[in-house]
Amino acid sequence: MKELIVSKAKTLHTLPTPCLVLDRAKLRRNIARMTVACARNGVTLRPHLKTAKSIPVANLLTGPNVSGIAVSTLLEAEYFAQNGFQDIQYAVGITPDKLDRAARIQQIGARVTLVTDNLGTAREICRYTDETGTVFHVLIEIDCGERRSGLDPSAPELLDLARTLADANNVVLDGVMTHAGHSYTCRSLAEIEAVAEAERLAVVTAAERIRAAGMACPTVSVGSSPTALHARHLTGVTETRAGVFMFGDVFQAQILTCTLDDLAVSVLTEVTGHRADLGHMTIDAGGLAMSKDRSTENVENDVGFGLMADLSGEVFAPQLTIARVYQEHGLVPVTEPHRLEDFPIGRRLRVYPNHVCMTASMYPGYFVVDSEESDGVEVVEEWSRISGW
Amino acid sequence: MKELIVSKAKTLHTLPTPCLVLDRAKLRRNIARMTVACARNGVTLRPHLKTAKSIPVANLLTGPNVSGIAVSTLLEAEYFAQNGFQDIQYAVGITPDKLDRAARIQQIGARVTLVTDNLGTAREICRYTDETGTVFHVLIEIDCGERRSGLDPSAPELLDLARTLADANNVVLDGVMTHAGHSYTCRSLAEIEAVAEAERLAVVTAAERIRAAGMACPTVSVGSSPTALHARHLTGVTETRAGVFMFGDVFQAQILTCTLDDLAVSVLTEVTGHRADLGHMTIDAGGLAMSKDRSTENVENDVGFGLMADLSGEVFAPQLTIARVYQEHGLVPVTEPHRLEDFPIGRRLRVYPNHVCMTASMYPGYFVVDSEESDGVEVVEEWSRISGW
Repeated sequence: MKELIVSKAKTLHTLPTPCLVLDRAKLRRNIARMTVACARNGVTLRPHLKTAKSIPVANLLTGPNVSGIAVSTLLEAEYFAQNGFQDIQYAVGITPDKLDRAARIQQIGARVTLVTDNLGTAREICRYTDETGTVFHVLIEIDCGERRSGLDPSAPELLDLARTLADANNVVLDGVMTHAGHSYTCRSLAEIEAVAEAERLAVVTAAERIRAAGMACPTVSVGSSPTALHARHLTGVTETRAGVFMFGDVFQAQILTCTLDDLAVSVLTEVTGHRADLGHMTIDAGGLAMSKDRSTENVENDVGFGLMADLSGEVFAPQLTIARVYQEHGLVPVTEPHRLEDFPIGRRLRVYPNHVCMTASMYPGYFVVDSEESDGVEVVEEWSRISGW
Repeated sequence: MKELIVSKAKTLHTLPTPCLVLDRAKLRRNIARMTVACARNGVTLRPHLKTAKSIPVANLLTGPNVSGIAVSTLLEAEYFAQNGFQDIQYAVGITPDKLDRAARIQQIGARVTLVTDNLGTAREICRYTDETGTVFHVLIEIDCGERRSGLDPSAPELLDLARTLADANNVVLDGVMTHAGHSYTCRSLAEIEAVAEAERLAVVTAAERIRAAGMACPTVSVGSSPTALHARHLTGVTETRAGVFMFGDVFQAQILTCTLDDLAVSVLTEVTGHRADLGHMTIDAGGLAMSKDRSTENVENDVGFGLMADLSGEVFAPQLTIARVYQEHGLVPVTEPHRLEDFPIGRRLRVYPNHVCMTASMYPGYFVVDSEESDGVEVVEEWSRISGW
């Protein structure tokens, strides 16, 4: 394809819409808050880059208390390995036919730590490493109550699986990991603390069983943004993987991971039309620009497909939301005291997404603003990101 | 970014998963069926490429009865203009600040026909074309009952809007267009026929009012896949824009645009894990691979986030569906008479999406198979596509 014709615009007033805006000041604050929480709990942070998928964002997440990164796809692993990241945990259960790609990523110069909960797959890892001479570090996935994948910490097969990995010539049993995805159903700090404790107990129990059987289990990894921030203690845990905390979203704000003021990512949009007879305006952020995620359907304040803010990022009061989306149209009901006349065609607005991991994946990069060091409207940097597999 | 390490695999047995598979034989059949429907109704087809966003797909849609293409973003307009397409309808309401980009696309050598329903925007188009010497063709958007955007065909301001455009020096009032998106709420052929007639009547009424006021109105454009296929007649209409018919999806099959056997696009996935205690397997097609679209929530047979098929594309009986999605995990309950043992880790499957426009947007291209000319598993071509704005 020939060179694309794109605007050279450098402020939110002139960027082509829809596009993705990242407030660097809020990103830094969010990272600082998580870093403090990890230090308080005596664990290292292994940032999960499935949300950001961006080198410049990852570069803000290095330091003595950062133990490497986690990723959700092998494409992410390749991208970060090619950009110098050397300790990469592929935090999704591996399958035998993905081993070859993981091995090739290691040839770039990174360790790609694998995850499995399955004896058959573990045997395939051992066979592959024996046959190829590749060395893989492997974590055993534990279910701490999410009921998606992983072994129960008391499962009899845990020790068979650990033994299979520990006994292999070219496999290093690194330890255990779990994901408290069910923290997303919590609606109070007390509930989050309870899930965090269940998460901790599950992996620590599994690690102790493995150690009691005479095997090493150096890594004890947990991970979800709510539990990472609100755990009362993480005794026995070595690292926490968390990702969405960097950006935050409306759903996370409602489940107490952050406040609306912490949301670092929004979609820049403009008003495209009015239907005064129906009391709504249309914007150019539809189903593709926002994603069809409806996380907030299940929390107290359902914001439809996104929560509207003005160009400075200030949420409207009373709130305005995207009630319906079509592929390229968002439909925003405008009710009293708001008036359609306040939203002329061409007015630029920002929308906070329900689920930023889904929304960000629709864009090739972030237009970076900074609400502390700049006026918050000037584009101070442009950061690329990847999507896909 | 350095060159990606990707598999050179050329069959569905070896492609990296998840990826997007397009069955060329089904695509051709779907196009032929729509072509016949348009010919029967005496209208030209203006394929809407918002679904496919792909030059090779568009190249299957040229011919004497094709009047040009429709697109949903200016990035699509750029992409198709750069690849030789000369008649492009940007079928989403234009805003003044997008005029400059549209004008630059015309400099590549394409006509970019604009759409508006708003007098203020029409005046800005006139001002822009006067000031720059650019010539724009413009269609007036009519609401035929979708209640999203567009003017009621009886609206008094229709003639003011038409007159403003018709009187401008560098604007050509091309006619009227509408979109019967509410055909998606139909559940029977009789209902679709009724919406198709409302769609036809709305634009024909608007066109006749414009002509009665002494202005030309050569183009009378309708568009939605269900109405394009099932309209009883389209007297007075000149062209139909339709897009999703090319690929089809589970939602379209349920609203009678196609059958499950016509679905040309699926996601290739593999089994990644088992939870025998919970009766489900996990696959590597999650929320990003499928999108979070839940269209089938509102039809008779809710298939969750996707309908499972075997590697040949045959839907399982009784059906298997993705009940839950996480970012990279899909969770598929496996109930009797199916058995988890029939789905070993690594088994490759295909998933038909709820809404193919959303799903396809997550991928950089199509791995093309052909269930008639080939064994349906060999990759016969690789077609790129675009996403974004």
